[in-house]
Amino acid sequence: MTEKNEPVRAIVWGENRHEQVEEKVRAIYPDGMHNTIKDGLTELLGDAVSVSTATLDEPEHGLTDERLQDTDVLLWWGHAAHGEVSDEVVQRVHQHVLAGMGLIVLHSGHWSKIFTTLMGTTCTLRWRSAADRELVWTLAPDHPIAQGVPHPFIIPEQEMYGEFFDVPTPDELIFLSTFTGGEVFRSGMTYRRGRGKIFFFSPGDQDYPVYFNEHVRRVLANGVQWAAAELPQRELPVLLRYDAEDFYTGHGYRGPMQR
Amino acid sequence: MTEKNEPVRAIVWGENRHEQVEEKVRAIYPDGMHNTIKDGLTELLGDAVSVSTATLDEPEHGLTDERLQDTDVLLWWGHAAHGEVSDEVVQRVHQHVLAGMGLIVLHSGHWSKIFTTLMGTTCTLRWRSAADRELVWTLAPDHPIAQGVPHPFIIPEQEMYGEFFDVPTPDELIFLSTFTGGEVFRSGMTYRRGRGKIFFFSPGDQDYPVYFNEHVRRVLANGVQWAAAELPQRELPVLLRYDAEDFYTGHGYRGPMQR
Amino acid sequence: MTEKNEPVRAIVWGENRHEQVEEKVRAIYPDGMHNTIKDGLTELLGDAVSVSTATLDEPEHGLTDERLQDTDVLLWWGHAAHGEVSDEVVQRVHQHVLAGMGLIVLHSGHWSKIFTTLMGTTCTLRWRSAADRELVWTLAPDHPIAQGVPHPFIIPEQEMYGEFFDVPTPDELIFLSTFTGGEVFRSGMTYRRGRGKIFFFSPGDQDYPVYFNEHVRRVLANGVQWAAAELPQRELPVLLRYDAEDFYTGHGYRGPMQR
Amino acid sequence: MTEKNEPVRAIVWGENRHEQVEEKVRAIYPDGMHNTIKDGLTELLGDAVSVSTATLDEPEHGLTDERLQDTDVLLWWGHAAHGEVSDEVVQRVHQHVLAGMGLIVLHSGHWSKIFTTLMGTTCTLRWRSAADRELVWTLAPDHPIAQGVPHPFIIPEQEMYGEFFDVPTPDELIFLSTFTGGEVFRSGMTYRRGRGKIFFFSPGDQDYPVYFNEHVRRVLANGVQWAAAELPQRELPVLLRYDAEDFYTGHGYRGPMQR
Repeated sequence: MTEKNEPVRAIVWGENRHEQVEEKVRAIYPDGMHNTIKDGLTELLGDAVSVSTATLDEPEHGLTDERLQDTDVLLWWGHAAHGEVSDEVVQRVHQHVLAGMGLIVLHSGHWSKIFTTLMGTTCTLRWRSAADRELVWTLAPDHPIAQGVPHPFIIPEQEMYGEFFDVPTPDELIFLSTFTGGEVFRSGMTYRRGRGKIFFFSPGDQDYPVYFNEHVRRVLANGVQWAAAELPQRELPVLLRYDAEDFYTGHGYRGPMQR
Repeated sequence: MTEKNEPVRAIVWGENRHEQVEEKVRAIYPDGMHNTIKDGLTELLGDAVSVSTATLDEPEHGLTDERLQDTDVLLWWGHAAHGEVSDEVVQRVHQHVLAGMGLIVLHSGHWSKIFTTLMGTTCTLRWRSAADRELVWTLAPDHPIAQGVPHPFIIPEQEMYGEFFDVPTPDELIFLSTFTGGEVFRSGMTYRRGRGKIFFFSPGDQDYPVYFNEHVRRVLANGVQWAAAELPQRELPVLLRYDAEDFYTGHGYRGPMQR
Repeated sequence: MTEKNEPVRAIVWGENRHEQVEEKVRAIYPDGMHNTIKDGLTELLGDAVSVSTATLDEPEHGLTDERLQDTDVLLWWGHAAHGEVSDEVVQRVHQHVLAGMGLIVLHSGHWSKIFTTLMGTTCTLRWRSAADRELVWTLAPDHPIAQGVPHPFIIPEQEMYGEFFDVPTPDELIFLSTFTGGEVFRSGMTYRRGRGKIFFFSPGDQDYPVYFNEHVRRVLANGVQWAAAELPQRELPVLLRYDAEDFYTGHGYRGPMQR
Repeated sequence: MTEKNEPVRAIVWGENRHEQVEEKVRAIYPDGMHNTIKDGLTELLGDAVSVSTATLDEPEHGLTDERLQDTDVLLWWGHAAHGEVSDEVVQRVHQHVLAGMGLIVLHSGHWSKIFTTLMGTTCTLRWRSAADRELVWTLAPDHPIAQGVPHPFIIPEQEMYGEFFDVPTPDELIFLSTFTGGEVFRSGMTYRRGRGKIFFFSPGDQDYPVYFNEHVRRVLANGVQWAAAELPQRELPVLLRYDAEDFYTGHGYRGPMQR
């Protein structure tokens, strides 16, 4: 975990397939979406953050256990290739989140293996890619993630994501988005799972230059600071036996029948 | 789904291993825990419920798709053999819950595949099997599940389950339990996942005659009535595309690249 | 409280001032809004409900203690004359809600004394009366209040109410509304306060015939059934002293210094 | 509001009556409980906090509007003289909280005018002053308020506060306490009301030296830092009219009939 006043260590994980395959996307994001997101974080947080990137095509998708150990917050953008993400890496990320690593799930990451695993639901929704205007309204004006953006802030063109979004009721509902067509979406939500903090933020389709938007960048910078763990060390919750009056010495589990 | 005034169709699923292997458990539950739970439901709900049982050793653990289709609420008790439950059956139950089937997870079912899949967390806790007295306190006095039991109700001997219980914050916190040793546990909680309603209720170890306790029986009867779906039909949430102004005609998903 | 299978006893409280003063409103609601709401409940619930009305101009606003004792659910519509509602009556209604009476707060009732007292916040919002179309989206598809209405349902003309709505985070977020102008509002929310259940539902301005809308009527009928107390008797929470091991005999409070 | 890296400005408000009237309390807290609490904050937070005190017997209870304007977090301890607190001062504090001032309500402050006004409920509970041991268990291990204390932490002698505690479901449940007698209490909870953050923390009776306990001090220090507003300026939510497409220019309310 990061020391007080040490930079938050973030990884922006990008699937990086649209950028390679689709001319339209490459024109918007010549450096890849992950690098654009990284640039936004660095621009706003400066020395308070240390950002790197990782992509699907790297060995182990760039997410070795060693690297995750040294990461405070992982941002996840995926869409076309959720199925290609290794189950082993997903399980590894899952364990790190439950042990205290922050996770920010972006846009179509709603259908990633890591998000559906953490949520336990289908994570389905209604959608339309037709350049709707998205208005992002703040529901929690005092929340650290909502600081520094107007109410509402406006994204001129975006993919529509609409309710019903099949996810658990969030711990905190930060933003609601509406679209030209009248749809509504819970676009900014937090969840605590295990000892980890999760922020889902839906703005950010590959077909529109959303990650250059100053307000989207502000929210992501706020989110990274929020999701960085408070805990002094990473620690996976475990099942332990405790004798009466010995509150601090847990004994390992030896199976259900041998008690 | 059940028609109004038709009986709620419940299955009590029991692992049924302790009863076969351990003399002590068989002495308490000569008919198996699942049958004792079934008897409690029938005793209190009479014609308002239609209860059957299923066990691990049956083909497909007694949980075929056809049978789940005709089930409003599934109760789940497992402990020693979570690992022997087929992944395919777990996935099937998961889909039915998300589509609207009620689920009641009992006691050591906290570590079952179906519960950990729905929660997305480790579902670990602290425990001790030393015949602690358990006091069950009502936090939601107006909730249907809490009707008809004293505040607190007392279970003379029980296994201790204590916090930190690694689960998501529940949608409703109904009961808190304390134990002789001073531990505390969120012993009655509800979750909504997909279109299904889930009730976790922790009292009920195999080593103590908890399922004969009149208050535990009352809570389970209340829980079965609460978890029965409101929905007219079972329906899994799906991802669909909607054109602007056509709010009711969803189009199937054809992959992320072909939009 | 109502016996099982006895009708739910509801009062529709209407301020009934717009209907007297404004020709436009009288044209829409010739019998007064309260009677239109009553008709809707009776139409849909039949013998399952027994509905009466009360208005501001009646002695004690029609809400004597005796009458509230015999009421399961109170619906509240007010707007122009919140300040004329007697503090004594508000306190009386407050006590009944905390003791278990259901309360449904309608539309501009968001600024009523009873609602602001229960919420503890300013209950302010943004608004515009310009015949916006309101789309009402269901966030809790399995909730009893949301049964029997399409997703979304459409109110052709309505006053716009928008976020930020300064209320506590609800216990359950049932509906979100969007408006022609792109605003969004938490239009259906539940709260539990004391032993009482509260449902806030925002559709229903005096300038539009909203209470004749079939879907609005269905939601109100569902709401009345939901808000009716589960409790066998009305009981205000009290502060009591309990000796150790005597869990059921509370002793009255005799002041902070005489302990 | 406080600038980043400027000290959080806190006031510890103490009723300061027990200390004057009761020899026993004066022996424990010769400087008054408010000064002991202040000392704890200063000890742990040093330059990061600027703490002063105020008491009931001062003019306006020491809480003028000018002073509240310059305060980030108000801590409130009251018990024997809730009724003597001026309604005008309570309303003033209420407005400041809704506009963004943090509030920490301590122990028997559960029955203070400011807390019951913010909660909207009776705030009643069960209690016993018999030197029970209190165990404080952490339910939110990743929350900033819970950092730096063991799980559980132990208060050797305390007044028992038990459920049912008649308050709204909190936004975050941080701590649960159990007592020698087996009772349980939600002893650490957060609420957001308006733009303000509220932390209720129950340990701290006048008859026991609880505010000298190192873990209680740590929690209070954490709480002060958490409750300090994120907002750049204090701002009471207001009701405003917005024309379509003019999202940022609100117009004042001119009454319900003149629209």
